Amino acid sequence: MARVLITGGLGFIGSNLAQALVARGDQVTILDAMIEPMGFNLANIEEIRDSVRLLVGDIRNPDDCMEAVMDQDTIYNCAGQVSHIDSMTDPWTDIDINIRGNLTLLEACRKVNDRARIIYAGTRGQIGKVVRQPCDETHPDSPTDIYGVDKWAGEKYHLIYHTSHGMKTCSLRINNCYGPRHQMKHGKYGIMNYFVRLVFLDQPIKVFSPGTQLRDYNYVDDVVQAMLLANSGKADGEIFLLGSGQPISLADMAAAVVAAGKEFGFNARFEMVPWPVERKSIEVGDFFVSFEKFTRTFGWKPSTPLPEGLRKTFQFYQERRDKYIV
Amino acid sequence: MARVLITGGLGFIGSNLAQALVARGDQVTILDAMIEPMGFNLANIEEIRDSVRLLVGDIRNPDDCMEAVMDQDTIYNCAGQVSHIDSMTDPWTDIDINIRGNLTLLEACRKVNDRARIIYAGTRGQIGKVVRQPCDETHPDSPTDIYGVDKWAGEKYHLIYHTSHGMKTCSLRINNCYGPRHQMKHGKYGIMNYFVRLVFLDQPIKVFSPGTQLRDYNYVDDVVQAMLLANSGKADGEIFLLGSGQPISLADMAAAVVAAGKEFGFNARFEMVPWPVERKSIEVGDFFVSFEKFTRTFGWKPSTPLPEGLRKTFQFYQERRDKYIV
Repeated sequence: MARVLITGGLGFIGSNLAQALVARGDQVTILDAMIEPMGFNLANIEEIRDSVRLLVGDIRNPDDCMEAVMDQDTIYNCAGQVSHIDSMTDPWTDIDINIRGNLTLLEACRKVNDRARIIYAGTRGQIGKVVRQPCDETHPDSPTDIYGVDKWAGEKYHLIYHTSHGMKTCSLRINNCYGPRHQMKHGKYGIMNYFVRLVFLDQPIKVFSPGTQLRDYNYVDDVVQAMLLANSGKADGEIFLLGSGQPISLADMAAAVVAAGKEFGFNARFEMVPWPVERKSIEVGDFFVSFEKFTRTFGWKPSTPLPEGLRKTFQFYQERRDKYIV
Repeated sequence: MARVLITGGLGFIGSNLAQALVARGDQVTILDAMIEPMGFNLANIEEIRDSVRLLVGDIRNPDDCMEAVMDQDTIYNCAGQVSHIDSMTDPWTDIDINIRGNLTLLEACRKVNDRARIIYAGTRGQIGKVVRQPCDETHPDSPTDIYGVDKWAGEKYHLIYHTSHGMKTCSLRINNCYGPRHQMKHGKYGIMNYFVRLVFLDQPIKVFSPGTQLRDYNYVDDVVQAMLLANSGKADGEIFLLGSGQPISLADMAAAVVAAGKEFGFNARFEMVPWPVERKSIEVGDFFVSFEKFTRTFGWKPSTPLPEGLRKTFQFYQERRDKYIV
């Protein structure tokens, strides 16, 4: 029975991870600052509320961090500001959370628990504009927004605390994750869940024309399985990209959401619209990855095809509509 | 007659740049926070004191930045915390200056002067561990210390303000610059100048054995010429590496410093010592670069051979020993 801390554990990936850890009998602590309108939702842990310790606290606060990291075996560091757009309109909050916050957590570990393994939830946004496809861990990084830069810095801090302070850290660069327990009240965090939200609201999905740019979408259970595997000495000091192995165009993804929505009785539909100006400069074009390094190291492969993942997603939110879709 | 702001203009590179700009008749403003024990030295501008406007202010202060950037044609952004070691013992100051400070300067420009060209003084430290030599601008970045990460983030902010806000920004990644007007009171900022200091103090130069790692050393006048050339639309949105084209081992460099010191009558000498533990983890091995991109774009080549640069360096400090060597 391992002691595991999840920062941002009330959010999308953190709470799905908490469900999996509790299911296998780990002692789970969640540290979450519960900042509106970020990803937290108490409904995300209602099935396991009595089995987890919930600390309401902020990774920017050294005392909160020290209390949370004490005596943990493993720390999944999922806390963060995760909106690309918000990082451009308010870069200060982004650097405060994603840079100062990550450093605060690492310093707390260095001081009171430098033996814990820390798994950082990185993002494909750190890579930015791609110069070759598929993108792997040796691809040069050139983020197109403040969020991508700051998450990159957070990742590198983790790796430096490995090389310089001997701590057990790694980064999984997560790539368009979707599924249950996502923030569904706005559309800033993940495009596929935002499309699902539009179906629930009986609104047409809008795809920026022509919608041909390719993306990888990873169902959250597959990502959680990868995170569980990464709790291993084989990950220490390493960066791994995660992906689906099945790149799909934005228009085809929208069509898949529409098809799943229809299965659940919705009048789902999508239409093509011109690109909005404020998104054009941070758009990175096609993006799909090779996760061969992670597969080679841990034997992981994503096992949830898009239609199945979407069905599970619709099922989840249909049963809990009042708690997610406002 | 252009209006030019230099942040960190009392420091090493900034003040040498100021000398060159004043010599050609530009209207120079210096913004410098004069923080001990950083690189500022009023002696650095004594020849041009009556020709420059000196603002004592901090790039972390929005009002200081707005006053400084107003009406400037060109901004050389040389301010920064520049010690690798200090960034590891006090990462907070490093992120405050190199991350929050750079963002504050960019935001001030965006608000009150988004037409100025901004040339960022980047560093080879952003690259970290090299996987191929010579290193060029497409090499992946993986800094080995907090300083390298934070300077990297500062560079990317500049480039994002180009793509997203249409501002004219670029980065020159400077590589082991040495010469007159360097901080000589301690050895944290540049190894060659530190070796020169030891010669002045009649102390042996210590080379971490075996001293075979290759480096590029750029004489500051060559770097200043590159910075003047980069004030051009051809640089906007670009990253350029600067180098010497003549990689030399640490031991040979030390021998060159010893030879120059002897020319000036010093009992210069060097000895081999074991690696200190706290530097070993942030040491990156051989490092030399291709600056072919900058040469191709601007026709620049460094023109000062190491022995000549070292002679000029010894000459400068010998004439001003009381103001530099404590």
